[in-house]
Amino acid sequence: LQDLKALVDIPSISTLSERRQDMQRAAEWIAAQLKSFGFESVEIMPSAGHPVVVGEWLKAGASKPTLLYYGHYDVQPTDPLDLWKTDPFDLQVCGDNAYGRGASDMKGQMVGFLKAIESITRNGTLPVNLKFLAEGEEEIGSPHLAAFIRQHENLFRADLCLNGDSSIYSPDQPSITYALRGLLYLELRLQGPSADLHSGTFGGAVDNPANALCQLIAGMRGADGRVTLPGFYDRVRELSPEERADLARVSEPDSWWLGQTGAQALHGEHGYTATERATARPTLDVNGLLSGFTGEGSKTVLPSRAMAKISMRLVSDQEPQEIRDSFEAYVKSHLPPTVTWELLEHSRCQPAIVERDSPAVRAASRSMQAVWGKAPVFTRQGGSIAIVGEIQEILGVDTLLVGFGLPDDNLHAPNEKQHLPTFYRGIETYIRFLFDYGS
Amino acid sequence: LQDLKALVDIPSISTLSERRQDMQRAAEWIAAQLKSFGFESVEIMPSAGHPVVVGEWLKAGASKPTLLYYGHYDVQPTDPLDLWKTDPFDLQVCGDNAYGRGASDMKGQMVGFLKAIESITRNGTLPVNLKFLAEGEEEIGSPHLAAFIRQHENLFRADLCLNGDSSIYSPDQPSITYALRGLLYLELRLQGPSADLHSGTFGGAVDNPANALCQLIAGMRGADGRVTLPGFYDRVRELSPEERADLARVSEPDSWWLGQTGAQALHGEHGYTATERATARPTLDVNGLLSGFTGEGSKTVLPSRAMAKISMRLVSDQEPQEIRDSFEAYVKSHLPPTVTWELLEHSRCQPAIVERDSPAVRAASRSMQAVWGKAPVFTRQGGSIAIVGEIQEILGVDTLLVGFGLPDDNLHAPNEKQHLPTFYRGIETYIRFLFDYGS
Repeated sequence: LQDLKALVDIPSISTLSERRQDMQRAAEWIAAQLKSFGFESVEIMPSAGHPVVVGEWLKAGASKPTLLYYGHYDVQPTDPLDLWKTDPFDLQVCGDNAYGRGASDMKGQMVGFLKAIESITRNGTLPVNLKFLAEGEEEIGSPHLAAFIRQHENLFRADLCLNGDSSIYSPDQPSITYALRGLLYLELRLQGPSADLHSGTFGGAVDNPANALCQLIAGMRGADGRVTLPGFYDRVRELSPEERADLARVSEPDSWWLGQTGAQALHGEHGYTATERATARPTLDVNGLLSGFTGEGSKTVLPSRAMAKISMRLVSDQEPQEIRDSFEAYVKSHLPPTVTWELLEHSRCQPAIVERDSPAVRAASRSMQAVWGKAPVFTRQGGSIAIVGEIQEILGVDTLLVGFGLPDDNLHAPNEKQHLPTFYRGIETYIRFLFDYGS
Repeated sequence: LQDLKALVDIPSISTLSERRQDMQRAAEWIAAQLKSFGFESVEIMPSAGHPVVVGEWLKAGASKPTLLYYGHYDVQPTDPLDLWKTDPFDLQVCGDNAYGRGASDMKGQMVGFLKAIESITRNGTLPVNLKFLAEGEEEIGSPHLAAFIRQHENLFRADLCLNGDSSIYSPDQPSITYALRGLLYLELRLQGPSADLHSGTFGGAVDNPANALCQLIAGMRGADGRVTLPGFYDRVRELSPEERADLARVSEPDSWWLGQTGAQALHGEHGYTATERATARPTLDVNGLLSGFTGEGSKTVLPSRAMAKISMRLVSDQEPQEIRDSFEAYVKSHLPPTVTWELLEHSRCQPAIVERDSPAVRAASRSMQAVWGKAPVFTRQGGSIAIVGEIQEILGVDTLLVGFGLPDDNLHAPNEKQHLPTFYRGIETYIRFLFDYGS
């Protein structure tokens, strides 16, 4: 708890340039921890942005697996500050919770893992080879990390990545997130006439790129939200009956989804629950639309250009490049000859899945069972974690997401907290996991 | 020419509040002209905006028709001023042209008509009863004129409106614009979830109002631009073979339309020329689209709202209210239950047509034939002139558009000019028209 307080109290807000020294202090604090555990090499390596803490302990030997731990030492800003009940950079315990920025996301999870290592190294030796990586730019989108890993690829070779930036289902119910959706985020720009035209003078003779854009987008999805791009579902891994049964245990009813979103009705592919649709099925969503005159009132313009930002959430084993090819082919074959087009790609992220019967998942599962007295549930996340896909792509290894945040930890919000009983159970789980995985 | 200079030199820019006194001066100049011609009553009437000049000469007697002349005495601003070769408010003659702001739009046309009246009244008496109306807000969209006419309906009762705010085909080819398209300009707003959502967490379970909007809009038009709203074409008056032949004489080839617009290809209903499609056929165009994130880069948002501004150009005898009803019924029946909607109406304008074999058109036609030595061609305009529809709606009379601007007069642009030989032919045409129409 003192160590948690030590790290949380350093205001390492990555997005604020005036916190540069605090970023360095947080990195140094972590490096000092690793050194004190007897890590062979510990370095604060410069990147194109904030520095990366890298540590290595390889004395378990070639017969033991090598684990790459991923964490981040930066935190979100604290505004609106007046909604905090305590100073966000002075960790305070109140009942079962410790309040402070980063207490859960993810200084709490990283300190938990460090304390697990400390416990093992004080009393003996680590049962696996361990590589440790803590970046300082996760909260600003990790703009330099993939390049950094690519540049130092050999430094990070491992059999498995353990990502601590995660949470469990509830204090009484451990869980393992075994799948994340991927992402392909495109921007489609159409151009019709070379400048905006008067819709009275030219309407009827000249095509309207905004109408053409709507036509194109309408053709990408069926009424139930099922994507109609050719081949889109070819590689989608269907849920097994066992997975569906497991997901059903942690699924919220439709009333919860309606309450959370304020939507009038739910929507999506027939034959799947809302949780399945939002985590195990791919999507195509318009994220932004812009064309012509959008101010108050009216302007009789036939717009020259129309733009849509369109993103697709992908699931295993869809390949972002194949999906992009299909999208492009669709646009090419459906676009009228009256408009020209341009396609930008803003981001792509591989979908990720870790096999539920792999040694790592089985080890994590047994460790949770031992600590909580009950087996974990298996969950999927609808969002994407870029670094998971990048580590898969660059290093060729799966990521096991095991962290001990809780759904009500107020991540990125005022009064962020770490639930201390879960924090301690997390440390014990990490210890058990390392021994189980290394045995 | 001196009178043209006198009026053009008054900088009556309606949109600039510092020109309020100049607006008054221009109104007074016109009122003084009417008084000097022996008009029985001449008044500068206040409106909710700039004043309206109203004059009346009813001595032709009940057996003669009553003509309502419509004009405006305000002009557009002059910026960019550095592109003017002369002072825009110091009319200067250079060769056949007189340069100055409003020289064509429409002080030139109004002075031409006033000089026609002066010529007749100096030598005798007017062959028709004449009501004269000149507003000062045309260039800012005539926000108060319809209410003004409605309020003083009896003052403006007439058999025909003569609108001088118009032009002819070329200096050597007189023309009569016998039809204008109408307009219905709507804004459709859809709302899905009550706030923007994370597209990873909720995408697939919750519908996206931007996708829903595209789907709706796509269903409003076929691939050739033909509108698919139920009943949309029921009242559309088809072009007669004679009209089509006449329009063909003044139609530009497709290469002209492509050059003017920079479009890659033309577009629209099969079986009609570009000129026909842009003037005699109704349309549905998206004028603006807005939803979600439209800045640079990406944001993985599932938007709460999506908006489209959609306008329809209408032709005789389509009824704006019926079209609106059809639009609403379409939206109601095609909208998914996942979104709520709101429909705003920004403007509506009746389509207008004046029968080509009516006494007024025949009189105008014969007058042009006499002055130019050749018959006028008949043209249609793709745009809408609100006041034409409003006068039809409020007073129940058709409008004859006869003015003598030219397509290259630089309206609303630097170096606006009036072609003087056309100006003088216009005066003679007005004189002949008044006698012919009154006979």
